[in-house]
Amino acid sequence: MIIIGEKINATRKTIAAALEARDESVIIQTAREQVAAGANYLDVNGGDPREGREVQNMEWLIEVIQANVEAPLAIDSANPDAIRTGLGKAKGKPMLNSISLESERLANMLPLVGQFDCMVVALLMSDEGTPCGVDDRLRNAETLIGRLVQAGRKIDEIIVDPCFMAVSTDPSNGRTVIDAIAAIHKQWPEVHIGGGCSNISFGLPKRKFVNFALLCQAIYHGMDAGLIDPCIPDIVPMILAAEAVAGKDDFCMNYVMAMR
Amino acid sequence: MIIIGEKINATRKTIAAALEARDESVIIQTAREQVAAGANYLDVNGGDPREGREVQNMEWLIEVIQANVEAPLAIDSANPDAIRTGLGKAKGKPMLNSISLESERLANMLPLVGQFDCMVVALLMSDEGTPCGVDDRLRNAETLIGRLVQAGRKIDEIIVDPCFMAVSTDPSNGRTVIDAIAAIHKQWPEVHIGGGCSNISFGLPKRKFVNFALLCQAIYHGMDAGLIDPCIPDIVPMILAAEAVAGKDDFCMNYVMAMR
Repeated sequence: MIIIGEKINATRKTIAAALEARDESVIIQTAREQVAAGANYLDVNGGDPREGREVQNMEWLIEVIQANVEAPLAIDSANPDAIRTGLGKAKGKPMLNSISLESERLANMLPLVGQFDCMVVALLMSDEGTPCGVDDRLRNAETLIGRLVQAGRKIDEIIVDPCFMAVSTDPSNGRTVIDAIAAIHKQWPEVHIGGGCSNISFGLPKRKFVNFALLCQAIYHGMDAGLIDPCIPDIVPMILAAEAVAGKDDFCMNYVMAMR
Repeated sequence: MIIIGEKINATRKTIAAALEARDESVIIQTAREQVAAGANYLDVNGGDPREGREVQNMEWLIEVIQANVEAPLAIDSANPDAIRTGLGKAKGKPMLNSISLESERLANMLPLVGQFDCMVVALLMSDEGTPCGVDDRLRNAETLIGRLVQAGRKIDEIIVDPCFMAVSTDPSNGRTVIDAIAAIHKQWPEVHIGGGCSNISFGLPKRKFVNFALLCQAIYHGMDAGLIDPCIPDIVPMILAAEAVAGKDDFCMNYVMAMR
């Protein structure tokens, strides 16, 4: 599982306050605790509506994080300038989070996908909004994967985010996204699949259990990447256990090593 | 999910000691805590190698339990006399745990399945041992379901136990049993499926996570019964969350009610 630690995000109050105050300690602590918990990438989102501010936030965040931890970064923004700045400053091979089939985002991000050696999150949204079923997710995946490969990315540099929707609003939302994951995994065995899966539990009490259940079921069907908070107690053991039961961990070595 | 509380079993030291001392308080406490945690049935196993003792244990256990809780009982033994005694004494509609295709057990239990109005756990073992794959599980299910229906049980009175094997000994054991569950569920949509699923984690550390992962994945594919310890923290919320994500809980009402 590619664990993308989601906590350095300006929509969170502690991060917004740290950004405003340029308080390095909060950022360093949040980076370190996620790496210690098992994050393979650190998501970096410095969103700010003020003119030019998001680019400055992105630069500062990346400097602070990279001076303190080794993990590669997922550059997270809807702002192409912030993405360009982030991909340019990031060491190693970063991740672009995210591109989609929405016309403006596609036009803005596609040149960057070609310009930088990066992983890329391919969100299956289009100008028609969020896909509702399995078939429209497959169609969007086919189009978006095609564009990304055309732009120079290899299939295993793409992480398809199938758009997780809340089961509280429609009880079929869980099965639909899981069946879509299975269909995408079957059609493109080398593409990574995952994303912001905690949407599944929106509006429900004790969301942790619903998120864990979704992770276990989606991992069985081919999900292998997640934008999650790895510091949530038990979430990494649950992911490793799900991989072991799904036959994705030979002789449970990863699970056993992590539990020791 | 039909939760069969597994704790009143003479293989557990506290229960063996309570049986030896005829200590009602331990049995009552174990029965009550399982019902409070969400058990729909209470498994009752009074196994004892001494001549005639298991039948006496079964009688005593059933008297003690039924004087104190209302839950129906799963009469658990390989001894046909203990099963006959248990099914005869149990109020309401008990469960016979279990019949299989092993010649002796089949010959002993099939008459009881016809004689008593009961649910029945149909373990897919045969004289050839534990099934290894999906196909042999399906073949065994077809034969055993056929015999049980012939003996007078309805399809929805049967709980097929697909034989859960440890992933630590063969990493394909999880996928195989889950795929078998999916195949059985597809062929007989009304049959219940489940059983002693915690075998999956035998030999691994922190077995809870592996058991939770198996439950989530198997529930997605049609498992709807489990011989479990409902008092394990978080296990019932995980089961309810798995059902919600799998679209088996309209508008998550069961989950939401239980979490309140």
